[in-house]
Amino acid sequence: MSQYFSEERSVETVNARMGAGVDPRLAEVMACLVKHLHAFAKEIQLTQAEWDRGIDFLTGTGQICSAERQEFILLSDVLGFSMLVDAINNRRPEGATENTVFGPFHVEDAPVRAMGDTICLDGKGEPYLFEGRVLDLDGKPIEGACVDVWSDNAEGFYDVQQPGIQPKWNNRGRFYTGADGAYAFRGIKPTSYPIPDDGPVGKMLAHLRRHPYRPAHMHFLVTAPGFQRLVTHTFVGGDSYLDSDAVFDVKDSLVAPFERLEGKDTAWRSPFDFILTAV
Amino acid sequence: MSQYFSEERSVETVNARMGAGVDPRLAEVMACLVKHLHAFAKEIQLTQAEWDRGIDFLTGTGQICSAERQEFILLSDVLGFSMLVDAINNRRPEGATENTVFGPFHVEDAPVRAMGDTICLDGKGEPYLFEGRVLDLDGKPIEGACVDVWSDNAEGFYDVQQPGIQPKWNNRGRFYTGADGAYAFRGIKPTSYPIPDDGPVGKMLAHLRRHPYRPAHMHFLVTAPGFQRLVTHTFVGGDSYLDSDAVFDVKDSLVAPFERLEGKDTAWRSPFDFILTAV
Repeated sequence: MSQYFSEERSVETVNARMGAGVDPRLAEVMACLVKHLHAFAKEIQLTQAEWDRGIDFLTGTGQICSAERQEFILLSDVLGFSMLVDAINNRRPEGATENTVFGPFHVEDAPVRAMGDTICLDGKGEPYLFEGRVLDLDGKPIEGACVDVWSDNAEGFYDVQQPGIQPKWNNRGRFYTGADGAYAFRGIKPTSYPIPDDGPVGKMLAHLRRHPYRPAHMHFLVTAPGFQRLVTHTFVGGDSYLDSDAVFDVKDSLVAPFERLEGKDTAWRSPFDFILTAV
Repeated sequence: MSQYFSEERSVETVNARMGAGVDPRLAEVMACLVKHLHAFAKEIQLTQAEWDRGIDFLTGTGQICSAERQEFILLSDVLGFSMLVDAINNRRPEGATENTVFGPFHVEDAPVRAMGDTICLDGKGEPYLFEGRVLDLDGKPIEGACVDVWSDNAEGFYDVQQPGIQPKWNNRGRFYTGADGAYAFRGIKPTSYPIPDDGPVGKMLAHLRRHPYRPAHMHFLVTAPGFQRLVTHTFVGGDSYLDSDAVFDVKDSLVAPFERLEGKDTAWRSPFDFILTAV
């Protein structure tokens, strides 16, 4: 048998080239990647012109990346790859709150606020009350859980996207639960917004006849000693992009009721309990 | 059944998102890509840290690309993907000369030289005579075939990599066959050389315990009216990297005899016939 390349034995030939002493997990990941990459080209009978276009696309995707822009993460997101990796790494028992992806807009060390405080500092948007409890799988309240929240503003931008325009820490905050496990904070109705669509990934979406919008959502990072870290969103029930999130983050169980409330400050209420899984 | 994302139905969910009116071939290629990309992550149970590393790798690969450097092509090359696409698109009948990849160093409109002339303009390297015939599958000589050749110099660099150092058109030329289909030119023994290995792809090769070298080779682009374009190399028989070309371009049938010759100008001879396939 020849050791040289052939269409038939392409995978074996490439993977046999790895030398002794390669990190075993790296060897496994690379061999699997080569196998699936070659299977793709063989199944679709990729043409030379399509290969050229692929090289150009990847190059353009890399070239637009900067400290403020990560186009490869966007690409992973719109192909459902980010959500898949999140799902693989966060399987939880029935009843536990499901994960969804972290996204690029979290900021460490947001201000710790008193329970019930508002996170909206620019006074724009429809007032909302977010409330519920942090519980374990048996329904027992978790004391001392940190509920770290962030959302876009009424115009669909996070504060970090508009430094100098929005107040720092606008629509962000951390809340610590007491013995009853309850949390509550005031904010605004999150706004649906497009992912950046002026680069290669946006052009690809246009060719695929897909819109770039994400349904409105509130981000939550819920942590407590002895429990798995929960990274998730709640989605505004009824949002018109729920069925077509550009990055596939929506799960049935994460669509939160957004109920109209009578009251002066708060016209709406979104109740949602977070069920954490023990480590 | 939910239309939302789940680990189980990830491929179907992502591919169902394409809208009406997408170019049918694009739809087919993208659906196939998503299928194999997701299969990779599922089979290998890709971790979040590995995904992070992948994003960083792709970003770095894009960022090093420039007018002079194409790191994504290098990546495709070292994964055997370029050769696979070349093989898929250039299947030929038994007996026809096999293709191999074009490479980045061809230049259009090289000088047309008289049969037997030298292409070596810097006078460095071991003299070689390259000769043979251009034939059809029945063994009949092809008249008026253009044999366009290029190689690196004795130090392992192509002229375009060293403008101002090497003479322009060093180790390049075009030769047109007569009625006998014969070609002959003088050059030097090509030199094995490393692909650029100071970027992300070079680092990856190091992690995989692979060297970056290519076995010594002469490039040929052979064209004739009525025949398929042949893009290939001949490899210097006995080169120590024949079995481990970093980009997998070697095929059994392309390893050329390099025979010692008695004579003043030319110490070696490499005979090789090119068999073209009718269009």
